[in-house]
Formats: sequence, C-alpha cells, structure tokens
Amino acid sequence: SDSQDLDLEILNLVMEQLDTGRIQENLRELSKEPHVASSPRDEALVRLLLERWQDTATGLDSAKSYEYNVLLSFPNRDQPNVVEVVGPDGTVLHSFVPREKNLTGEQGEPNVLQPYAAYAPAGTPQGLLVYANQGSEEDFKELETKGIKLEGTIALTRYGGVGRGAKAINAAKHGVVGVLVYTDPGDINDGKTLPSETFPNSWGLPPSGVERGSYYEYFGDPLTPYLPAHPSSFRLDINNISGIPPIPAQPIGFEDARDLLCNLTGPPANASWKGALGCDYNLGPGFKQDGSFPAGSEVKVRVHNSLELRNSSNVLGIIQGAVEPDRYVIYGNHRDSWVHGAVDPSTGTAVLLEISRVLGTLLKKGTWRPRRSIIFASWGAEEFGLIGSTEFTEEFLSKLQERTVAYINVDISVFANATLRAQGTPPVQSVIFSATKEISAPGRSGLSIYDNWIQYTNRSSTVYGLVPSLGTLGAGSDYASFIHFLGISSMDLAYTYDRSKTSARIYPTYHTAFDTFEYVKKFLDPDFSSHQAVGRTAASVLLRLSDSLFLPLHVSDYSETLHSFLNAAQRDLGTLLEQHGISLDPLVTAVKEFETAAAALVRRISALQNSSPDPLQVRMVNDQLMLLERAFLNPRAFPENPYYSHVLWAPNTASAATFPGLANACARAQDTNSGSEAWAEVHRQLSIVVTALEGAAATLKPVEDL
Amino acid sequence: SDSQDLDLEILNLVMEQLDTGRIQENLRELSKEPHVASSPRDEALVRLLLERWQDTATGLDSAKSYEYNVLLSFPNRDQPNVVEVVGPDGTVLHSFVPREKNLTGEQGEPNVLQPYAAYAPAGTPQGLLVYANQGSEEDFKELETKGIKLEGTIALTRYGGVGRGAKAINAAKHGVVGVLVYTDPGDINDGKTLPSETFPNSWGLPPSGVERGSYYEYFGDPLTPYLPAHPSSFRLDINNISGIPPIPAQPIGFEDARDLLCNLTGPPANASWKGALGCDYNLGPGFKQDGSFPAGSEVKVRVHNSLELRNSSNVLGIIQGAVEPDRYVIYGNHRDSWVHGAVDPSTGTAVLLEISRVLGTLLKKGTWRPRRSIIFASWGAEEFGLIGSTEFTEEFLSKLQERTVAYINVDISVFANATLRAQGTPPVQSVIFSATKEISAPGRSGLSIYDNWIQYTNRSSTVYGLVPSLGTLGAGSDYASFIHFLGISSMDLAYTYDRSKTSARIYPTYHTAFDTFEYVKKFLDPDFSSHQAVGRTAASVLLRLSDSLFLPLHVSDYSETLHSFLNAAQRDLGTLLEQHGISLDPLVTAVKEFETAAAALVRRISALQNSSPDPLQVRMVNDQLMLLERAFLNPRAFPENPYYSHVLWAPNTASAATFPGLANACARAQDTNSGSEAWAEVHRQLSIVVTALEGAAATLKPVEDL
Ligand SMILES: [Ca+2]
Ligand SMILES: [Ca+2]
Ligand SMILES: [Zn+2]
Ligand SMILES: [Zn+2]
Ligand SMILES: [Zn+2]
Ligand SMILES: [Zn+2]
Repeated sequence: SDSQDLDLEILNLVMEQLDTGRIQENLRELSKEPHVASSPRDEALVRLLLERWQDTATGLDSAKSYEYNVLLSFPNRDQPNVVEVVGPDGTVLHSFVPREKNLTGEQGEPNVLQPYAAYAPAGTPQGLLVYANQGSEEDFKELETKGIKLEGTIALTRYGGVGRGAKAINAAKHGVVGVLVYTDPGDINDGKTLPSETFPNSWGLPPSGVERGSYYEYFGDPLTPYLPAHPSSFRLDINNISGIPPIPAQPIGFEDARDLLCNLTGPPANASWKGALGCDYNLGPGFKQDGSFPAGSEVKVRVHNSLELRNSSNVLGIIQGAVEPDRYVIYGNHRDSWVHGAVDPSTGTAVLLEISRVLGTLLKKGTWRPRRSIIFASWGAEEFGLIGSTEFTEEFLSKLQERTVAYINVDISVFANATLRAQGTPPVQSVIFSATKEISAPGRSGLSIYDNWIQYTNRSSTVYGLVPSLGTLGAGSDYASFIHFLGISSMDLAYTYDRSKTSARIYPTYHTAFDTFEYVKKFLDPDFSSHQAVGRTAASVLLRLSDSLFLPLHVSDYSETLHSFLNAAQRDLGTLLEQHGISLDPLVTAVKEFETAAAALVRRISALQNSSPDPLQVRMVNDQLMLLERAFLNPRAFPENPYYSHVLWAPNTASAATFPGLANACARAQDTNSGSEAWAEVHRQLSIVVTALEGAAATLKPVEDL
Repeated sequence: SDSQDLDLEILNLVMEQLDTGRIQENLRELSKEPHVASSPRDEALVRLLLERWQDTATGLDSAKSYEYNVLLSFPNRDQPNVVEVVGPDGTVLHSFVPREKNLTGEQGEPNVLQPYAAYAPAGTPQGLLVYANQGSEEDFKELETKGIKLEGTIALTRYGGVGRGAKAINAAKHGVVGVLVYTDPGDINDGKTLPSETFPNSWGLPPSGVERGSYYEYFGDPLTPYLPAHPSSFRLDINNISGIPPIPAQPIGFEDARDLLCNLTGPPANASWKGALGCDYNLGPGFKQDGSFPAGSEVKVRVHNSLELRNSSNVLGIIQGAVEPDRYVIYGNHRDSWVHGAVDPSTGTAVLLEISRVLGTLLKKGTWRPRRSIIFASWGAEEFGLIGSTEFTEEFLSKLQERTVAYINVDISVFANATLRAQGTPPVQSVIFSATKEISAPGRSGLSIYDNWIQYTNRSSTVYGLVPSLGTLGAGSDYASFIHFLGISSMDLAYTYDRSKTSARIYPTYHTAFDTFEYVKKFLDPDFSSHQAVGRTAASVLLRLSDSLFLPLHVSDYSETLHSFLNAAQRDLGTLLEQHGISLDPLVTAVKEFETAAAALVRRISALQNSSPDPLQVRMVNDQLMLLERAFLNPRAFPENPYYSHVLWAPNTASAATFPGLANACARAQDTNSGSEAWAEVHRQLSIVVTALEGAAATLKPVEDL
C-alpha cells in the first residue's frame, strides 16, 4: 500500500539472519586469488556476483554487468621494476626488485603483481638520493631552504601526508627525476620492524611489504572526464592527462628503504621527519663515507610500467521498490583489489553479499519488498581511481541525480575490532544513530554499537549534547562521485581501531600481498563479529532509507555544520575579509535562513506524521529531503577541480575549517602578493556559498511558498 | 482529491470570461507612460501588478516583488547624443539629434528616452563614413575584400542579420571607431518611406522612428553571471564585462540615415546590401563629390551614455496547487519597455493580467484551485538583456529545476492579426495543438486557431502528417534562461503576420516612441480579438499543464527532432567526420534508444490512463515527463557560451541544421587550418550529445529498470 512503512519485525529478522559463517566463506572465496581490475579473476568475480544476484532463491529482481573501456596502468611481467645503487664508476653495487617475500605461500602465486606506482611513467632515472619526508610541497621547500640541491636527484619519500601522486608531482617541480616511496615502520607498525614482530606473527607489516597504489590524483577514467568510457567515447590525448606523475616512481618496503636511507650523508632531518628505521635520517644528497656504498654512488630506478586500455565492469543488482520504485537507495563497494585484497575490498564485499542474500531470500519468499528500490553495486577499478563508480555516475547522471535517496559505501568493512567509524554528510547522521542504537557491539561489553562508538569518537553537539562524531567524506572510496559530482547524500561505514592502541596510518598490510584471508582470520576479526556488526549497521541503514514512509534524512543537522563553518570564517577570516571590504553579513543571514527553513520543515514533518498524510503529501516532503544535498552543487564553482561541485565538501587545502571555496580563495589571496583578482575570487566564492545556502533554504520552505 | 484532473467546464468558463474590453483597458493603463526599467513608472507598474494580484476578489493566493541591483545603461538627459558631419576644415556642416518627431503627442512627453544603444560606451569618434550592410563579420570582410579601408572609419549599418551588439563588436575588430545603426524602410516598411504612408497614417515606421535596444550580446545582469544580483553579491569589475560594444554606437532613423548613406562615394554595394532608401548604396569611405557635403567630410558621433547600477524588480504571484503544490507552471512576461511599450511588452502583460483576473476570480470564489501551482511573473529589465528573469533563475535555481513543469512566455502577444506563432521545445507541441484546436481564430473564418495556423506555417511530420510548425527558442525573450540554463520545457506564444502581405522584420514601430496604445488600437488589433485568441491559447495551455492528472508533455515528440538532427549530421557532416575517423554510429544508436524508450513510455502511460492508477504511479510518470528536458543539460558542454547548457538548443552558428555543439565544432575544425585539437573537440561534442541522449533515454525507461 502507498503507506508502507518500515517494518521492525523484518528489520529484526534481517539483523538476526546476517550470518558470520557466511560472511567468512564469502571472504574466503573473494580473496582466494589476486583479482586486480580487469584480470581474469576479476572477471570471474563479476560472474560470481551475477550468479549470486540472479539466484532464484536468494537473488535480487535482476542483475547486470556494465563494461567500460578504461585506462589502467600495469608493471611489466617480463621485466620487473628494479632499484639499483650505481657506483661512481658506473658499476651496479646493489640491486633489488621491490616485492614481498613469500612468507605464507600467497605471495609467491603467479598472479601477484609486482608492487608499483600505477600511472607512473616508465623510465630509468638516476641521480644522488635525497630524503624528502612525505614529499609535500612544504617538504621540498624545506630541503631547498636547507641548501639541498634537488635538481637531478632521486627522492626517497615515505607514505602519508599527501597523496601518492602528489609526491611525484611535487618532486618534479623541484627538478627531481625519480621518486621512491616506502612505508616507515613508525607510521604503520607502531615502530615494529622485526620479522618476528610482523605478519604472519602479528598483524604488522613485514619488512618486505610494499604498498601498491594509484598515483593518479583525480578520479574516474583519466581519458574520459565527464563522459562514460564507452568504446566510442571521446578520449583525451594520452599526453594531455593531468594529475599523473611526470617522472618515474616506485614504492618499496622498509627493509629496502633502510639500506638506502640509513646510508645517506648530509644534514640530519628534523625530528618530525624521522621514522622508526632505527638509524639517522640524513637528507643527502648521496651516500655517506663509510656506509654501505662509496660516496658519490647514485640510485637508479628502472620502471617499466605501461598504460593499457582495459575492460572493467560494474555489477549492478536491483530490488524493485513496491511503492516508489523510482526512488533508489544505492549500496556499493568495489570488487577489484591490488593483490588478494582480503581486507581491501573483500571484507566489504563479503558483507555486501551476505546482506543481499538475506534480503534476496526474503524477497524471493514473498515475505518482503521494500517501499523504494535498492540497488547493489560492485564497482570495478576503484583502486586505479574510483573508476567504475565514476563512470557509472557519468553514464546515468540525470537518472541518479533525480532519484537517489542516498548512497551507502562499505569498502573495507573491518580495519579492526574496536569501534564503528562512520563518514557522511549531516543528513545521514540520524539514521546511522538510530540504527546503531539498536545493534549490539561485537565483544562482551553488552553495549550497543552506538554506546561503544561514543566512547571512542565523540563531539559535543550544540543540538544533541555528546554524540559520536561523523567524519567527512573526502575522495577515499567510491562515494566520491556520488557526493561531490552528483550531490547525493552519502556515507561510508566500517569497524576500526582503538587509537589508543595503535597509531598505524591504516591496517599494516594495506595494498600488499600480505592482505590475505588468513590475515583477517587471525588478526582482524577471527569470529567475524565485527563484520557482522558492520553488516547489521549497513543493512539497518539501508532498510530504514528504503522502507521508511518518511525519509530518515535529518536535513536540519546541516545547520550545525553551517554554524561551525560560519564561526570558523568569522574567527579565522573575518578581520582579513573586512580589510578587503568583504563582509560576512550576507553569510550570517544565509545560515540563519537555512536554519529557520530546516527547523520549520522538521516541525511540519512531525505534524504530518501525526496526521494521516496522503501519499502525495509524504512524497512532497520526501522530495525536499532527498534533493536538499543537490542544492549545494554548483558545477561552475571550482572549474580547476574536476568533479568537485559540492560547495560545502570540496577539498579544503587551507587552514581555516570553513567553506572550502572561501578558505582556499583566502589562502591564495593571502599567500602570494596577489592583486585584486585574487580578492575578487574570494568575494565570488563567498557569493557562491551564500547563493547555495539561500537556494537550499528556498527548497526547504513550504512547497506552496515561492 | 489526489486524482483531480482537468475540468473542461472550468476550461470553457475561462475561455469565455477572457474579455477583450478588459484587455484593452489593461493595455491603455500599462502603456499610458514610458516605463523603461527602473523608472518611476516602472515602479508604479510594480505596484499595479501587486494590487491586481493581491486583490481579495480577483487576485491570487499571494504576490510579492523581488528586487535586484543590476547594471543598466542610459543616455544623458542633459546632453543628448548627436551625429554630425564635419567638413574637412573642421566646421560642423550638418548635425542631428536622433529622436522621434512628435507626431501624436506621446513622442514629446518628458519621459521619452532619446533613442540610444544601451551598453554602448560614451565617446566622440570621428572618421570617414562607410556603409557596412548589417555589420556581420562577413560584411566587414567583404568590404576589406573590396579594398575599403576600415581603420578609423564610422560604419553605418542597418538593423537585421546579426545582433545589435555584434555589429559594434565586429566593427571594432576591423578598426572601425564608431557605429551608426538605422532601420532600412526595405526591412521594416515594405519599402514605404513617406509620412503619408507611415504612422499615424498606417502601421509603417515614420521616417524619424529609431529602434532603441540593448547592445549587450549575452543575457542576465552583466556584472553578476550565475549569481543573483543582490546588493552584497560579487560583481565583476566593470572593465571585465564581455559582450558589450567596445566602441560608441548610436541608432538613427531612416530619414537621417538617408542624408548620410545617399551621399556616400566609393563602389556600389551588392544588390543584397541595398535597401529602399531610393538612392545608390555606395560603400564609401567618405562622401561623394557633388553631394550634400564636401568630399573629405567626416562623420562624428557624440555618445553620452552611462552605465548605472539600478534597482529592478520582478513581481511574482502564485496560485497554490491543491494536490501537488510543489509542481509549478510558470507564466511570465516582462514589464519594462523602451518607451510607452504598448505592443512590446504591454500587449503581453494586458493578456497576462486578464488571465490572472479570470483565474483569480474563480479561485477567490472557491470554484476552482489548480492541481499544481501556477506562478505568474512580471519580469524587470528584459529590454536590457532578459535581466529580471535570468536573476530569478539564478536565485531559485535548485527549486525551479526540481519542480517546474513548464514555462510559458507571452511577450508581445499581438504582432499582427493573421495567425498564431508558437515557439517551443518538442514536449510542448501537443498541448499547444490540443488547446488551439478548441479555440476559434479571430475574424470571420470560422476556423479554429489550429486550422488557421496550419494554413500559414506548416510542416510535414513523419509522425503526424501535416501539422503547424513550432519554431525553436533562441534567446529573444524571457524564456531563455528557463530553457537554456535550467532545462525547463518552454514556449513563447503570439499572434503574428501574414508573411505574404508584409516582409517587415518585426512590427514597424518596434522599440520606438510610436509604439503606443493608439498604434495597437488603430493598426494591430482594433477589436482586441487577437489578444483574446492569444489569451485563450495561453490560458488553455496553462490550465492543461497545471490541472491535467497526467502531464500533457509529449516527450516522444523529441524523437522527430532528433531524427532530423541526425539526418542533417549524416547528410552534411558524415563524410567529413569519417575522413577524420569519427563515426556517427553511436549517435544513430543513441537516437534509436531514445526513440524506443520514449515510445514505450507513451504506451505505458496509455495503459495507466486506462487503469485506475494510484497517485504515486501518476506522479512517477509525471516526474519522468517533467524532468526529461533536464537530462539534455550539460553545464560543461559550452564553457565559452554563458548560460547555454542545453545540448540540443544552444546557438548553432554553423550551416548544418543539427546538434549545435557538433555543428559549431565541425565548422570551426573545417574553417581554419585547425589541427587535431579542433577535431578532438568535434569528437568531444559528439560524445556529449550521445551521452545526453542515452542519459535521457535512461530516465524514460520503466522506473524500476536501471
Ligand atoms: Ca569517464
Ligand atoms: Ca546575475
Ligand atoms: Zn578499497
Ligand atoms: Zn584500496
Ligand atoms: Zn519584449
Ligand atoms: Zn523589446
């Protein structure tokens, strides 16, 4: 019936039926073999997903794969990338092939790709080695300040701080000819470095482990911005791609990094640059006297990567809504991995498949059909730059933008067993809270996920008091194009660390050949209870969004964010703006206008809930809720930042924690001896935000008002 | 009730009640005084509209004015613009102030603005005179080909062919220092030039009549692109405005033009350049021997215009929908005129006010309330560049884009008495046909408006056989930002000429001080029956859109347009594209896909109409119909063309009658010795269209499909 609403019995049934054993078996199957994007095993998993979702007893209404022809990058199987130390006389004194030692068998499997920097060009640069910390622009400036000549050097950098590709892009600007990137044990292993202290003896990264990754700084297929990568689509000239390393780059393990870094000459690095290799961190250039290599020895990096056009597929499965089939709740994760990808992404897909099985079974039995449509998605080629999900949003832009209620992403579902971690935009906060209050946390605490979560990550809300704090959405997984490009309310869910117990940047075997089923089983979640907890949270959120008569999107929760952005603008930028004749008053007014309109809408919804609303009345307020996030889009706001249209969540690279366009423009105007044009851009960015907030407020007012 | 549908009795009642006498009295009042944008009389008319729409017996639910602070341009009251002929010795031999003779009293009223070229800069250029036909780029090239030196000249051009501002922009590129623009009697009066043959003795343009107009080539407030022109909004530096004349320009009447043009020396103009001044059309430069002025005499143009920030208001009135108040049908016209503006725009506003009175009366009596909301709009500052309507779309972008069913524009409602003229996008064709089949044409033919119309303007439709032909929407009135910027299905309606009786470019007193109430009463529509016919058409379309249970937007009518664009692409560009390795096959597929999806939707709607659909089922298909036009928007398609996002209706400046982006890109790639980049842009434009068509087709498929 048109008034179909969330059924708590069904919800409880789903919660109960999400089965740890099945999640474990899903994970075992998904991570059995390496399945990098477009590989035969990746294609086999496409078929597995189609089989599951087309199963007549446990599947969905329909499922289909969607192929795109995209630009990927691979190492050369026949000619591995090599790092050499070359003596002053040209002889190779030391040489290693960056790759993992075969500690558990999986690392020696034939389909394990050598660690590489995807999209870094081939080449054999050679030069004196320097240590450049995290490879940020500031790091290279600091080296120059210290008198380190960078021209013609090879820079050794460590993971963290800035994006992978940024290290090489920054380096090249300073004349560096090649980049090595390693994982410092201080950043990943809480300092542990010994084989006995690392996998398979603990969750730590073994000395030979190397983080693979995409060195492409943007997202989506690099050749087809804003167009789906169909075979016939227009493609950029391969020389016109921006956001990829202009110089060869190669990741290495800390064992190999130590051989190089601990032999450097030159002044010592600052304390903040030092890691846990257990030696001096000198800056170079070149090697010290009395070290392993003669002074004057250089480092040569042989990179044989190549760019390849490959077919990569998304798999989409749908449960048609019973009442509002044209409203979609989308729940997705990527399928492709770097190696076996047990944790990343298969912990997510294992949970996804279990949720789709439970819901599919209810569906096929005739027990249940959601009010709105549910779309399950298995994205391809995420690891190369969120490619599958981005192409999907490009292909179905209008349809998705008009109809999608929310996007739920569960990539790595379990980083660790301590607590929930949730990222999202303000409208999804309340539904995550509602869901997690009703689900038990894993372990024996007896607490709900919510009550456990609030102990780890919390904030003082001006509206609610102490609440768990939701993180914001960057571009770390497939939600990026949904929130930034399409303006769809999105979230990302996972179980994660107790930060008092580890400072690891991410789980230690991330993107290495040690990320295997056994790793998860032994060290991350032996009883799969955290998987189950995330599965229950995601399923509960999914059902609440797809089945509730009134959409559980609490749009007025944006007001708190806006006030905090406004306060930061006033505190950190107010005086400066005044000096340049720019007043924040219109922003104050706009924030108030939004707040008032949102609060009034919440009251109208409450009143409507207590009456017997007719179906169109409900649909009208739901449309207001669903479409609010769209009102924050402005495709003309950040022309230099591809896909970023959301004026509240575009990347803020400035220090002020406020509206990103305003913050960045202010930083730029202050930074250089910028003229009036830079200040004009500040004013333009302010007006863009004011217009967006007022436009958003207008959509929340009673629909019969103008 | 949720199933409220169009009530034919109400429709007939409205048709009967639209009263010629009241339209006439509206027109008399509206055109009583000059009311250029932001003038006191313009403000008085804002109050008049508010009074009418707030009237308790005949008004709407509510009405409000919305003020913007916009950049306008005015002549100097104390220092009129002057044109002089200066002898070789520097003495002024001839001098005139371009303005209308006071033939009927109104031309002498104090608030009549001197004819001027709005946004043309002040200055006093002087030089030899040349005749440059319509001032197109080709015209200036032709002059250069003929060896006419343009550097330092004053160019005399005639109205027509290209935009007003374009004449000055093109001229300046060739070194011309000042531009005069006149109305040739061959273009406006079917050659008639004598006072006895022109107003007040006929509808013809008197010899002293001068067409005012905006010389701004884009639309919207020039200082605030994409932002509403609120006082605090960011504004461009006045020196950074593009699309305005870089050199002084001034329009003049044909009487004054004759004194100059008929005295030119130099080679004769081509036949196609010649008008009806009854003399030789020589090209110059300079005056001939034995003419009125000594050879070597120059022309000096004294322009004293200035740019001014002024307040201009829109007035908006709303009738709230009974069932779907969040769906808007918008019906608007501008309010501002150049002088008295009887025809332009008051014939439109007179009709608008009569429709709002009739509907308002039914509303206040409780007889009727539409299913959807109706918004009436009186736009400000249209004459300067569609400013009020554009600012409105900038301010309420999200809300309007999400909710607007269609936009109806009636600017000049009566150009002449012969036939309906309708412009619009394909989805509105059928509702205009339905409406006009039921309304009698003015006069004694006994025909319906439709049957009369088809005799004047028709085409052979592959689907329907012979039908009246709908024109396409350029940017000639306030529909521009609705269709091009927001992607809202739009139309423009008027009664117009018998083209076998006149070749006048537009009604002769257009934008002059002779466009008065008496002009309309005596020459255009003495019994106001054409006004009534347009009013009935607009009101019927309005009611059908706002009251029909199923939206009368026939989206499958786009298929015919797409096939015609596709055929033209294949015919005119196919070989060329093939030579450059670009295949049209994906476009063929996309057009077919659209056609199939649209046809299937039409069948599903028929089936639904024959069942007893529930309210949400109806809403879902209506959303598909309403939002189709949005799927053709791509804000990244034409970055050089402000506001134009609709990939099917952006300006096509090329010869191929096909997809504009493709046509223009092909023309550019062929034109110069363009390299691979120009051909890459051709391919990009092709992919943009293919993606838009496939995306649009996806929105028309069953909502439960992906
Ligand atoms: Ca793409
Ligand atoms: Ca504006
Ligand atoms: Zn991942
Ligand atoms: Zn990953
Ligand atoms: Zn007009
Ligand atoms: Zn006009």
